[in-house]
Amino acid sequence: MTPWQSITADEMRVLEAAFWAPNSSRHDLASPMGFSPSKGKALIAGLIDQGLLEEAGPQPSQGGRPAETLRLHHGLGLLLGVDIGVTSLTVAVLRPDLTLLAEHSEAIDVRRQGPGVVLARAAALMRELLARCKGKPAQVLGIGVGVPGPVNFEAGQLVSPPLMPDWDQFSIRDFLRDEYRAPVFVDNDVNLMALGELWRLKRGLPNFIVIKVGTGIGCGIVCHGSVYRGATGSAGDVGHICVDTEGERCHCGNRGCVEAMAAAPAIVRQATAAAEAGESPALAAVLAERGALDAEAVAAASRAGDAAANRIIQRAGHLIGQMLASVVNFFNPSHVFLGGGVTLIGPLFLAAVRQSVYQRSLALSTRHLEVQYAPLAGQGGVVGAGALALCETLRARGVAP
Amino acid sequence: MTPWQSITADEMRVLEAAFWAPNSSRHDLASPMGFSPSKGKALIAGLIDQGLLEEAGPQPSQGGRPAETLRLHHGLGLLLGVDIGVTSLTVAVLRPDLTLLAEHSEAIDVRRQGPGVVLARAAALMRELLARCKGKPAQVLGIGVGVPGPVNFEAGQLVSPPLMPDWDQFSIRDFLRDEYRAPVFVDNDVNLMALGELWRLKRGLPNFIVIKVGTGIGCGIVCHGSVYRGATGSAGDVGHICVDTEGERCHCGNRGCVEAMAAAPAIVRQATAAAEAGESPALAAVLAERGALDAEAVAAASRAGDAAANRIIQRAGHLIGQMLASVVNFFNPSHVFLGGGVTLIGPLFLAAVRQSVYQRSLALSTRHLEVQYAPLAGQGGVVGAGALALCETLRARGVAP
Repeated sequence: MTPWQSITADEMRVLEAAFWAPNSSRHDLASPMGFSPSKGKALIAGLIDQGLLEEAGPQPSQGGRPAETLRLHHGLGLLLGVDIGVTSLTVAVLRPDLTLLAEHSEAIDVRRQGPGVVLARAAALMRELLARCKGKPAQVLGIGVGVPGPVNFEAGQLVSPPLMPDWDQFSIRDFLRDEYRAPVFVDNDVNLMALGELWRLKRGLPNFIVIKVGTGIGCGIVCHGSVYRGATGSAGDVGHICVDTEGERCHCGNRGCVEAMAAAPAIVRQATAAAEAGESPALAAVLAERGALDAEAVAAASRAGDAAANRIIQRAGHLIGQMLASVVNFFNPSHVFLGGGVTLIGPLFLAAVRQSVYQRSLALSTRHLEVQYAPLAGQGGVVGAGALALCETLRARGVAP
Repeated sequence: MTPWQSITADEMRVLEAAFWAPNSSRHDLASPMGFSPSKGKALIAGLIDQGLLEEAGPQPSQGGRPAETLRLHHGLGLLLGVDIGVTSLTVAVLRPDLTLLAEHSEAIDVRRQGPGVVLARAAALMRELLARCKGKPAQVLGIGVGVPGPVNFEAGQLVSPPLMPDWDQFSIRDFLRDEYRAPVFVDNDVNLMALGELWRLKRGLPNFIVIKVGTGIGCGIVCHGSVYRGATGSAGDVGHICVDTEGERCHCGNRGCVEAMAAAPAIVRQATAAAEAGESPALAAVLAERGALDAEAVAAASRAGDAAANRIIQRAGHLIGQMLASVVNFFNPSHVFLGGGVTLIGPLFLAAVRQSVYQRSLALSTRHLEVQYAPLAGQGGVVGAGALALCETLRARGVAP
């Protein structure tokens, strides 16, 4: 049994605060909660005695005796973060303060590989990475898993995921239960990117969105300072927002969905057509050499100044910006963070997204709006998965007074 | 000085709970807050002693001695709610439990009348209605005002309202300060409709939206159980979401904004064109008789079976449904409530909205989605204004422990 099986609700609030505001002093931690100084002091002393908080060196001096910095105790255990994308798998071992101890990323394809195959590989990587940092399964506090589709958060299952039907209702939790006693929490991959950024920002921005553009297009929403999942868990499903009523047919049955017109498969399709039509010598050469194109090939052609590649990238950016303009008008976020493989396709993409958003959104919504790359970039998913694991584990273990 | 100048934060929480859950027993009020039974009992007894809460008769018996129902004390004072639409002004006097004591509605036009004229009329109506229910200005606890444009909530001012430039930065608060000592709170009209519905629902639905379709199109958002205003107060500005990239030019400079294509002026314009083109004898007759058409004339023609009127109404409903489909995909609300003059244009409108939403949104988002008329209908604005006045007054008067 770990020591914190019996923490009180007040103690849990202090631990949560230490997680969200790393490197805080005793005063910083306790005072925003409205505790009296003596109660705050006693709570923190108790948590240190229980081995849940620890001192981590003095704060930068401001004249007098420098205050001690507090953090979640490293001895609490380890977190496992798993980020399953449509075409990539990332696994990480993290400390309770989300320091990354070990991380590994590799290509997969959930459209062809079922949950048994992908999760078995994730479990193998978890074992390997744990061993690499000399951790044991019994030390694992909590496991967070991100998946590229709509999730029933309570059940920890995907629900009718359009790109990966084999995963529908599959219990990721049961699959991992045999190996770890730690609780498993599952969420949509973009929700976890949003949670990761929220942690990085120390909850300093209450209202922002994260857009991931890869094989699909999804959106994580932070509203009133916490991740918003919607009435049935499908909030942020922006891939099927219509950007052209006469546009291409999507697998969902409608026309002109932004995902069908501007995600990676559409970019590759347009690049292949340009190569075959003789519009791009650069893309034609890659196609002839490798037999197929991918988004990276389009990025390389664009970097080399290929006009067709540039046109395709700008078109995708404009369409995504048009979708985002609707979202910005409705939601009025302070920031739009862009992540996912396609957003790395080159600076023209970001420029086109920005141009469309600023042109099509109302002035009042864009006056202070920032549209930029997600600062955690490719690590956002596993950092968010670690944050989910820690927050939900704390919540599950906190005992009402 | 009113008695509650010195209430504590805990007392304020009990009063807020009594507001949001009218007709609660002592137990219902205190237990969700985690107070011990004796502390809850003492708090409530203190609030009754101070004249802030009162008993309002026994609850329906469940076998034993029936519990007493509690409510905010009627003697606390009165609330004034003002709902300024583009073409209508509604003023109401309400009790602290939002019972409507007096209400009056009349036509205005904020596009032609400046804030001085409209607010002077609102102030005259406030005086008249207060007198009608034997109230005095000194009894007014708080004043809530809804306006049809983006609001800086802290300042209580409209910010660059597209339809009413004269109101930009005008201090509604200062205008009313001479006559009332009570605080004045200003919000967007659709945010107040959303707040009104949230109160009617006793906060039972945490995530829903209210759409108002009249001269413009706006949206109120409830997220995580409270009204969401966005990073700069313009959340819900859905009127300029694009539904047709080749559509009509909007006054905002873009093409195909849903407001330019489906709000009341567009409906009237299309009806006039149909009348002039000989496509609708019914509309042509009204046009000849009155010299101009309005949405009510289109509604009447539709009720009489006029094909052109039906086609115009269905087109507007489809376009609004298309915009809502984007919003539903992004936000995944449990309910979409429709209000505003245009939504009363006939059952074909609601049917067309629903058809578009269900066709264009993802199945997971619509599986449990309800699209229906706003239950508070035309009273939503003043009820929401009363709710705003009460909640913000409580918040401003609550004293930290």
